[in-house]
Amino acid sequence: MLNQETIVALATPSGAGAVAIIRISGNNAISIANEVFRSVRNKDLTKQKTHTIHLGHIVDPSTSSGQAKTLDQVLVSVFKNPNSYTGEDVVEISCHGSVFIQQQIIQLLLRKGCRMATAGEFTLRSFLNGKMDLSQAEAVADLINSDNEASHQIAMQQMRGGFSNEIAKLREELLNFASLIELELDFSEEDVEFADRTQFKELLNRIEFVLKRLIDSFAVGNVIKNGIPVAIVGEPNVGKSTLLNALLNEERAIVSDIAGTTRDTIEDELVIDGIGFRFIDTAGIRDTKDVVESIGIQKTFEKIEQAQVVLFLFDGLKFKVQSSEYITEIEKIKNKYPQKPLVIIINKVDLLSENELNTITSQLTTDNCQLLTISAKQNIGIEELKNTLLSFVNTGALRNNETIVTNTRHYDSLLKALEEIQKVRFGLESGLSADLMAIDIRQALYYFGEITGQVTNDELLGNIFANFCIGK
Amino acid sequence: MLNQETIVALATPSGAGAVAIIRISGNNAISIANEVFRSVRNKDLTKQKTHTIHLGHIVDPSTSSGQAKTLDQVLVSVFKNPNSYTGEDVVEISCHGSVFIQQQIIQLLLRKGCRMATAGEFTLRSFLNGKMDLSQAEAVADLINSDNEASHQIAMQQMRGGFSNEIAKLREELLNFASLIELELDFSEEDVEFADRTQFKELLNRIEFVLKRLIDSFAVGNVIKNGIPVAIVGEPNVGKSTLLNALLNEERAIVSDIAGTTRDTIEDELVIDGIGFRFIDTAGIRDTKDVVESIGIQKTFEKIEQAQVVLFLFDGLKFKVQSSEYITEIEKIKNKYPQKPLVIIINKVDLLSENELNTITSQLTTDNCQLLTISAKQNIGIEELKNTLLSFVNTGALRNNETIVTNTRHYDSLLKALEEIQKVRFGLESGLSADLMAIDIRQALYYFGEITGQVTNDELLGNIFANFCIGK
Repeated sequence: MLNQETIVALATPSGAGAVAIIRISGNNAISIANEVFRSVRNKDLTKQKTHTIHLGHIVDPSTSSGQAKTLDQVLVSVFKNPNSYTGEDVVEISCHGSVFIQQQIIQLLLRKGCRMATAGEFTLRSFLNGKMDLSQAEAVADLINSDNEASHQIAMQQMRGGFSNEIAKLREELLNFASLIELELDFSEEDVEFADRTQFKELLNRIEFVLKRLIDSFAVGNVIKNGIPVAIVGEPNVGKSTLLNALLNEERAIVSDIAGTTRDTIEDELVIDGIGFRFIDTAGIRDTKDVVESIGIQKTFEKIEQAQVVLFLFDGLKFKVQSSEYITEIEKIKNKYPQKPLVIIINKVDLLSENELNTITSQLTTDNCQLLTISAKQNIGIEELKNTLLSFVNTGALRNNETIVTNTRHYDSLLKALEEIQKVRFGLESGLSADLMAIDIRQALYYFGEITGQVTNDELLGNIFANFCIGK
Repeated sequence: MLNQETIVALATPSGAGAVAIIRISGNNAISIANEVFRSVRNKDLTKQKTHTIHLGHIVDPSTSSGQAKTLDQVLVSVFKNPNSYTGEDVVEISCHGSVFIQQQIIQLLLRKGCRMATAGEFTLRSFLNGKMDLSQAEAVADLINSDNEASHQIAMQQMRGGFSNEIAKLREELLNFASLIELELDFSEEDVEFADRTQFKELLNRIEFVLKRLIDSFAVGNVIKNGIPVAIVGEPNVGKSTLLNALLNEERAIVSDIAGTTRDTIEDELVIDGIGFRFIDTAGIRDTKDVVESIGIQKTFEKIEQAQVVLFLFDGLKFKVQSSEYITEIEKIKNKYPQKPLVIIINKVDLLSENELNTITSQLTTDNCQLLTISAKQNIGIEELKNTLLSFVNTGALRNNETIVTNTRHYDSLLKALEEIQKVRFGLESGLSADLMAIDIRQALYYFGEITGQVTNDELLGNIFANFCIGK
C-alpha cells in the first residue's frame, strides 16, 4: 500500500505570513531538495546529518529564459529516515510567507519529480511506516481541530497513545486466552483445558467493564468535541445578546492578549472552563393564533429538542404585566421536556427592588428547574450562570485524566467488540464448544484491531485520511 | 536602541493548518524554551549546537491545578547568535497548527518572561545587529507582499543587496573625494588640490547618470509594485466580464495545479507575463440629458483619469445601429486624453461576417489608438490583447536585471541626493570654495546613507517596521 513516490505540500496555513513551510517526504526528498538548493556554505544536502538546518537559496536551475533564477532565501531542515514524522526522508523548506513564493517553490519541486500530497498523506505514511497507530493518527487531526481546553486534552492524550495502550492491553490478554483455547482444539481428543475457565471469565468481566466505561465516555467525548447545545428561549429584547456578550467577555480578554493570533469567534459559541457551549437562539413560545408565529413556535420546540440545556430568559421589569404568559410558557417547556435541564433566568435584576424580586420568585415554582437572577448589562450573576452550565457536564472523567472516546469510528468498533465479548461470555456460561467460542473471540480481536489499525483496509484508510488537511 | 528583551510571535499565517511556527529571539530565547521543553532524549537545549532540531513536548510545568500539563508534541530548532535571522539566539517551535495550541504555547512563553514582538521587530533586530541594511530589510516586507513575477524579482534582488551595492559603491567613491577635498581644507593656505577636479567631475557625471536611471526606474517599479491601472469603457452587456474571465483563465489553470495553495483572486486584478494589471470597470460615456447618468459619465472620466491604459470595448453586432454613438464616444476620449494609450476592441467578432467587420473598421480611424478584434467567448484575439497591454509597459529594465526602485522612501532620498550632486557639480563649475562644496557633498552622502540605513533615527525605523507583519 505504501508507495514510493516523493510527495510535497504546504504545511502551514495558506495565505501570507512571515514564514511558510513546504514539506517533502519520500525516498528522493533529500536529493530533489538538493537539486534546487544552493547552500551559502556550498553544503551538499545529501551529506548532512539528520535534524540539521541549512541556510541558502532555492534556485530554479532552468527557467524558460535559460537563466537560473533565485526564488527565495530559505532555511532547509533535513530529517533522515526513520527519524522523521513520516518515517521516510523528510525535508522542510522554510521560505518567506508570500503566496507567490510558496507556489513557485512547490511548482519547481513538482517539475523536479515530486507529486502533490493528498489530504493526510504525510500522517498516512507515518501510520503505514509504524510511527503511530491508527487511533494516534486520528488524534493528530483532532488535535489540529481542537479549539478548547477539553478537546485539546483528549486529543493530546489519544495522540500520545493513552487510548491505544488501553485497547492494546485488553487485546493482548484476550489474544493469550485465544491462543490457549485454540491450542485446546489441537488436543481436542484428549479433552484438556489449557485456558483456565475461571480466569477467563474474570478477564471477560474486566474487558466488559472497560469497554462499557469507554462506550459511556463517548457521550462526554461527543459533547466535548462538538460543544454542548444550549437553547435560549426568550422574546426579542429581553437581553439575549447582552447575555452572550457578558458570557463571552472574559474569553475575549484572554484571546486579545496575543495580537496576531486572534481566533475566529463565532458569536454564539463560547468556551467556559475548557468546555464548549453552543448557544441556540430561539424566538420564544408565546401563545398565538397567528399562523406565521405558530410556525416560529414550532421551530423553537425543534431547537429545544436539539439542546441539552434550556435557558428561559425574561425581563424582570416586564414580569408584572406578563407574569401569566411567562408562567404558561415555562410550564409548557417542563411538560414537553420533563427530562431536559431548565434554567429560568430573571434579567435586569439591577433595576428591580427587593420587593419586586420577591414577588416574582414567589410566583415561580422551582421544581424540576433552577432559578437565577442576573443583570447581563451590569455583569451580575454571570459567574453563577457559568457554574450552573458547567454543572450539567459530567467532567469527572476529564478531570481524572481517564480515557474518553470522541471518535464515532472507535465508538462503533467498541460497541461491536462488546457484543462479541458478551457472546463469548454467554458461550462460556452455556458450555459452548471451544471451536465455536474461538470464532467469537477472533471477531472481538478483529474489532480491537480496527481501532488501532492492526486490522485495516484501503477504503477505511481513505475515509479517515480524507478528513485531514493537505500538508499533514 | 537595541533592547535586550526576549520576544516571541507566531511566524506562520494565523489560522489552522498542519504546522505552525512560534519564533523566539533574544538573550534568553534558548533558556526560556528549555524551561518548557521536554526532549524525548532528555536533551538540554542550552547545550545543543546551532542549526539543530530536537523532538519533544512543550510542557506547562505549573498549571493552576498544580499538575504539569503537556501542550503539544513539537520540533524545536535552535539557532545561536550571530548565526540566526536576528543575529541573536533564536528558537523556532514547530507545533501542530491548531489555533488553540498556538495560543497556549505563546501564553506560556509570555508567562516565562518573553514579551510579544511588535510588527517587524525580528527584522528590525536583524538590521540593528548588522545582518542586513535598511533597504534589504524593507525588501523582506516587499517579498512577502509580492504577488507576481516582476515584483517578486525586484524584491528578491533588493533583498540580496543589489540595490544597496549600487548605492554603497557610489557612496564610497563620493566619500573618497569628500575626504580629499576636506584634506585640502586643512592645507587651505597652501592652495593644493588633492582631489583631481577632472576626475571628480567625471565621478559626479557618473553618479548623476546612475541616480537619474534609478529615479526613472521608479515609474516602472511603481507600476510593477501596484499593477497597471486599465480602464474598460463600455456599456453593460458588451462582454466586459467575459473578457476579464478570458484574460484570467490561463492564470487560474496554473494556480489550481496546487491544491491547498489557491490564492485569493480579486476578480479584476490579473497578472500577464509577470506584470500585474488592475482593471477598472466603467459605466461608459453615452451622451445623455439624464442628470443621474451624467453623474455616471463624470465618474467614468475620473476613472479614465486614474488609468494608464484605456480599453474601449463594444459589441460588433450593435455597431450597425450605434455607430455614430460609438464614434462620438471614442473621439471624446481621444480629445480629453490625447496622451493616454487607447485600444478600441470590437467584441463578438465570431458572429460578424467579413463584410460587416470591414464596414466597421472602415468607419473607425486608428490614429492615436489601436484597433483589435476579439471574441471573449470563443477566446479569439485574447493573446493579441495581452501582448498589446504588455507593450505599454517598459519592461526592458526588468528583463535586463537592472536595479529598479519601488520604494517611495528610496525615491525621495534619491531625488534629494541628485539635487545635492547637481549643486556640487554647479559649485565645481563655478569655482565654489572647497569648504562650501564639502557641505553639499556631506549632504549628498547623508541621503545615500538614509537609503541603506547608515543614517537613521527612531521615527524613521518606527515608520518602516510598523508596516511589517508581526512575526517577521
